Amino acid sequence: MITSLSNSKVKHVIALQKKAKKRNEEGVFIVEGIKMFLELKKEMIQEVYLSESFSSAKEGNYIVNNYQVEIVKDSIFQEMSDTKTPQGVLAVVKQMSYTLEEIVQKDSNPMLLLLEHIQDPGNLGTMIRAGEGAGVTGIIMSKDTVDIYNQKVIRSTMGSVYRVPFVYVNDLKDIVNKLKTMGITTYAAHLLANESYDKKDYKKGCAFCIGNEANGLSKELSDLSDEYIKIPMLGQVESLNAAMAATILMYEGARQRRN
Amino acid sequence: MITSLSNSKVKHVIALQKKAKKRNEEGVFIVEGIKMFLELKKEMIQEVYLSESFSSAKEGNYIVNNYQVEIVKDSIFQEMSDTKTPQGVLAVVKQMSYTLEEIVQKDSNPMLLLLEHIQDPGNLGTMIRAGEGAGVTGIIMSKDTVDIYNQKVIRSTMGSVYRVPFVYVNDLKDIVNKLKTMGITTYAAHLLANESYDKKDYKKGCAFCIGNEANGLSKELSDLSDEYIKIPMLGQVESLNAAMAATILMYEGARQRRN
Repeated sequence: MITSLSNSKVKHVIALQKKAKKRNEEGVFIVEGIKMFLELKKEMIQEVYLSESFSSAKEGNYIVNNYQVEIVKDSIFQEMSDTKTPQGVLAVVKQMSYTLEEIVQKDSNPMLLLLEHIQDPGNLGTMIRAGEGAGVTGIIMSKDTVDIYNQKVIRSTMGSVYRVPFVYVNDLKDIVNKLKTMGITTYAAHLLANESYDKKDYKKGCAFCIGNEANGLSKELSDLSDEYIKIPMLGQVESLNAAMAATILMYEGARQRRN
Repeated sequence: MITSLSNSKVKHVIALQKKAKKRNEEGVFIVEGIKMFLELKKEMIQEVYLSESFSSAKEGNYIVNNYQVEIVKDSIFQEMSDTKTPQGVLAVVKQMSYTLEEIVQKDSNPMLLLLEHIQDPGNLGTMIRAGEGAGVTGIIMSKDTVDIYNQKVIRSTMGSVYRVPFVYVNDLKDIVNKLKTMGITTYAAHLLANESYDKKDYKKGCAFCIGNEANGLSKELSDLSDEYIKIPMLGQVESLNAAMAATILMYEGARQRRN
């Protein structure tokens, strides 16, 4: 059993929790919690840590019998965890890896989500979860978007992060141009749009651009987009939360594709 | 200028920040931040506090000239604030007050949101914001729903909390029964539903029931609802975040009502 904070594995996990750079250098991330852990494919798992008290509980016992695990004293496990009340299981896991080509060629009429500089981990996580539900083909993010392997993102995806393909790109403008050549229409939610989002046809290949929470979509990216769309807002609402806007658009896409 | 933590006004604000019970006894709440402050109607405002450094900034100066304010030393203001990096303005404000009758009778075909035991302040705030955008008539909450005057709720509404009527009720089941007698149809998002949410007609009076984040809608409440509806989910998604589900339904209502 690991009982010391100076244990090298403990220090390593703590460093991975805190530093996106370290996670990316090693090509791994941290998964916490029973549900998120049990959804992992075995070949992704590199290390499994259980808190002492959880290891003797029923679910912990199942994990002990089926995985190679290290038991950690509760107080030390608490330090390794990103949550205030850890469930008692934590794993070091291989990062997923997708290419842009895989994502856009997966479906002859893909529905893509293009995210520019999204900063809030909860927003990104929720968009991935709603995106899986709506059936998006994949998510393409500007490289200044919050790290998808941030523990808060992972948690708020509720497991969707394992299943929705995604890729970070240096320049979303290049992507929009590339999508044009492939016949995929890019839609930018824009205050100057004349037409409501539900008046467009999303059955063909489409991509929804969602911008930064505070500043919206950059002028460069919205100028490049094929179509402006408006999400009508009553009252004095000036904008919707980025995750809400994305969900409304993706679910309108899903609705049209069902009908 | 207030320079001490033991100042009675400072202590009072800190108590109001922390305790829902105290806020409700006094019928007030705390508003922080420039945008949220400037949207307040003057008659709602009881006390205004500015941090020393903000009071000499341009926007602070405007507030000094137009409101009766107390200047507070920055380090003390930080203690009064609920945020890590306060903007420097904070007000004690009278609570809004609506009756159930006002809300349901405001519109001959109301669109209502019924919230059961929502716990996450960000979820509630986002639903209020999206609700205003979608044009809901009002929000009816079970009394075990998170306090709407919680600072995190207030902030995430982006001002919509001032404009969307709401009421807490002892028993949502009584409300559903009451709505029935008024010809308002109650819809419960339910895993056992056969029909997709977009196949129903929300142009007439309607109410969407949204349940607790972890446990969903209680059996009692879903049994009482007039109709089950399904939000189709692809992939392995078992449920959507409560705020997402509410937004999808309210915006479908808005879409139908526009068309």
